[in-house]
Amino acid sequence: MGLTLAGDSILAKGLERIQREIDDAFDGLLPVPDDHSARLVEAMRYAAIGGGKRVRPMLVATVAEMYGASRASAIYAGCAIEAIHVYSLIHDDLPCMDDDDMRHGKPTLHKEFDEATAVLAGDSLHDLAFELLGGHKVSEDPFVRAELVYTLASGSGHNGMAGGQMMDIIAESEGREYDLHTITRLQQLKTGALLGAAVEMGAIIGKVPEEGRGHLRAYARDIGLAFQIADDLLDEEGDEELAGKALRKDADMGKATFVSLMGVDDARAQARALSEQAIGHLAQHGEEADLLRALARFIVERDR
Amino acid sequence: MGLTLAGDSILAKGLERIQREIDDAFDGLLPVPDDHSARLVEAMRYAAIGGGKRVRPMLVATVAEMYGASRASAIYAGCAIEAIHVYSLIHDDLPCMDDDDMRHGKPTLHKEFDEATAVLAGDSLHDLAFELLGGHKVSEDPFVRAELVYTLASGSGHNGMAGGQMMDIIAESEGREYDLHTITRLQQLKTGALLGAAVEMGAIIGKVPEEGRGHLRAYARDIGLAFQIADDLLDEEGDEELAGKALRKDADMGKATFVSLMGVDDARAQARALSEQAIGHLAQHGEEADLLRALARFIVERDR
Repeated sequence: MGLTLAGDSILAKGLERIQREIDDAFDGLLPVPDDHSARLVEAMRYAAIGGGKRVRPMLVATVAEMYGASRASAIYAGCAIEAIHVYSLIHDDLPCMDDDDMRHGKPTLHKEFDEATAVLAGDSLHDLAFELLGGHKVSEDPFVRAELVYTLASGSGHNGMAGGQMMDIIAESEGREYDLHTITRLQQLKTGALLGAAVEMGAIIGKVPEEGRGHLRAYARDIGLAFQIADDLLDEEGDEELAGKALRKDADMGKATFVSLMGVDDARAQARALSEQAIGHLAQHGEEADLLRALARFIVERDR
Repeated sequence: MGLTLAGDSILAKGLERIQREIDDAFDGLLPVPDDHSARLVEAMRYAAIGGGKRVRPMLVATVAEMYGASRASAIYAGCAIEAIHVYSLIHDDLPCMDDDDMRHGKPTLHKEFDEATAVLAGDSLHDLAFELLGGHKVSEDPFVRAELVYTLASGSGHNGMAGGQMMDIIAESEGREYDLHTITRLQQLKTGALLGAAVEMGAIIGKVPEEGRGHLRAYARDIGLAFQIADDLLDEEGDEELAGKALRKDADMGKATFVSLMGVDDARAQARALSEQAIGHLAQHGEEADLLRALARFIVERDR
């Protein structure tokens, strides 16, 4: 994939590797059945295989490996969190939600199939996530499995991602003028909760004790906010073809964003400061955390 | 609730008890937050509290207690499977799916709130199910938690309930004439998989070894099919007011059902035979299984 930071080969290699691994894993996990439910699995494959940046699986895998866990465990957990991310995009794109026609440079699922199939394929990917985490492939240790489930479900449910989406919908439909504090809270839920869950899941697989996770959580919090500010900047200034989706929707709706509230220059400065702050939280780690550092930089400089 | 079998006080008491327990548990699990996501939790409460028969939680609780497990564990697991059932009804009722206006005698969620909120509330109940099963409240034993998650996710995903719904949608949209074999397979997925998961979850909480679950699985398989045949009979002959939802939709669409394929009399005879067969599988149990026996009878004689 085209990176803004062309020289950053650690990141380019890391992303290329995780993208291949996640695609291969989904391919193996989703064989098309020879019955009338085939269409459902075809829709799940259409949405889950290819196209995504796979930032969340990379966070899981990198943190897990920093603490000596097996890559295979991390890939299954990475598939689980990516399945949640993908399902949320499918439902978000529906006509009754954001009504988007393009995603990752191709028609959204309800455009390529139909709305009912999109609802069901999203629901099925949602289940797949927990089937993976509850099953034996991700870990032989049931404590690890149960903790992964709890962490992912908390991050994606009404106290996490879905709660943030609800706040976002209310902002759109009622034209509420959210202030910077409220927008920050909204984004911490909508995007930050799942990025936080990714890092936490890596720590669970790596068996990092609770009290040793503070710096990882701080890293996740900072990149989560930086990620969303960068998203708002992309929505304002990005290239639709590179992004593979419609842009400038927020501005057109007059919705409050980090950019509308802070201005482009301050928003960019804030994103970069958060990225540097995130990297600062990794000071106790050596080169095994270089990928997390590169990711923190990539998140604010990406062009899609 | 009004039961057809007025004399069956074991069942009436059992249902009343589980209905109160599940309502109370959801009430405690879903406090309305004091922020902009309040609407989401209000919608979840609207759909989850009150109205349902709670057949699935009763199966979990009855099987778990037959093997000496704590009622509290079973209630949390019962809430989890009921959250899955409720989320599937919310999404099923959406305009792009079955487009239903009434459920449990009140407006469907998207009618009372709006479609976007209905999608998100369904998704959030879906997460709540796994947050409950992954967390400590349901069991101190992480193996039990992980097995519950795996069982519920497998029963509800593309190889279970959602797969059955896909087959159902294809039957509607393409007007395919399914034969009895295909309808049986469809219903085993759409309804049977989750009823099977309920019994299995009870067995997991009751720590019944795998090899001791055969008769419970056979019971679940038979009541699952009986339940769906009875549903088709209700759709054909039932009272809309009692049912609290629109009926005769299948016949209006010319969709193949057990009743259209077998006729009313044979379908009723088949449902009763399955109910008796289900009860036969419980022969090794004493009066501790009376509720399961009463439930098998209720399922085919209910009026809603």
